[in-house]
Amino acid sequence: MTDPVAERAEAKSAEHDLEERIARVAFNADGLVPAIVQQWDSGEVLMLAWLDAEALRRTLTTGRVTYWSRSRQEYWRKGDTSGNIQRVVSANLDCDGDVVLLKVEQTGPACHTGTRTCFDGRDLGAVAADLDGTPAT
Amino acid sequence: MTDPVAERAEAKSAEHDLEERIARVAFNADGLVPAIVQQWDSGEVLMLAWLDAEALRRTLTTGRVTYWSRSRQEYWRKGDTSGNIQRVVSANLDCDGDVVLLKVEQTGPACHTGTRTCFDGRDLGAVAADLDGTPAT
Repeated sequence: MTDPVAERAEAKSAEHDLEERIARVAFNADGLVPAIVQQWDSGEVLMLAWLDAEALRRTLTTGRVTYWSRSRQEYWRKGDTSGNIQRVVSANLDCDGDVVLLKVEQTGPACHTGTRTCFDGRDLGAVAADLDGTPAT
Repeated sequence: MTDPVAERAEAKSAEHDLEERIARVAFNADGLVPAIVQQWDSGEVLMLAWLDAEALRRTLTTGRVTYWSRSRQEYWRKGDTSGNIQRVVSANLDCDGDVVLLKVEQTGPACHTGTRTCFDGRDLGAVAADLDGTPAT
């Protein structure tokens, strides 16, 4: 047996809870927050993109990642053009509330250049530290 | 046998090469680029922080990660106060040149709150997608 009044109350409460979670985000002066996107099982960092409150709302509720495109000034549901969709596994906020970590299941390459991640083959040539326990100075 | 003239020429060439790599970075209007920081072996995303050209130069050449602190407006070599240092393993630029991925060896917790990463226990409650192959709509 369903109770329509109880159902409506529950839906309203879930919506309220969602808005409370979104209100915890410290969006920047442009109303955006950076999202780090990581393949949930391999740990690969795939890309970084930007969310406004509405893109975050869609990402948290639909199972598909939606961004705000700063260059095109429009919502961009990843994969709608390329087919390389991102299914949402989890979303976490950082300690300062100004970065989101999205764990996703990435279909195909994440990068528009066709590489798996946006960081493939783009080495900045850092001098690596000695990891054998020598204190770095 | 060392040839001081050849040595000086080599040092100058290395410096030129470093400046060329830094010049590839598309810093934002504030002269900053976000750095995603990842534990190199476990794949944990530890934090996001910001670099200016000089912080990037120090990070690429010294084996220790140095940031620009936007709140304190000063250079911040991670771990100098807390002991929780970050040794550099690699640095990559993304496809648009406006994000850096730093792989590091993190000593202790990365987060100033004492958690291993800045994202621990800060779940935004996303509705997870069905990962069994059902096409997400």
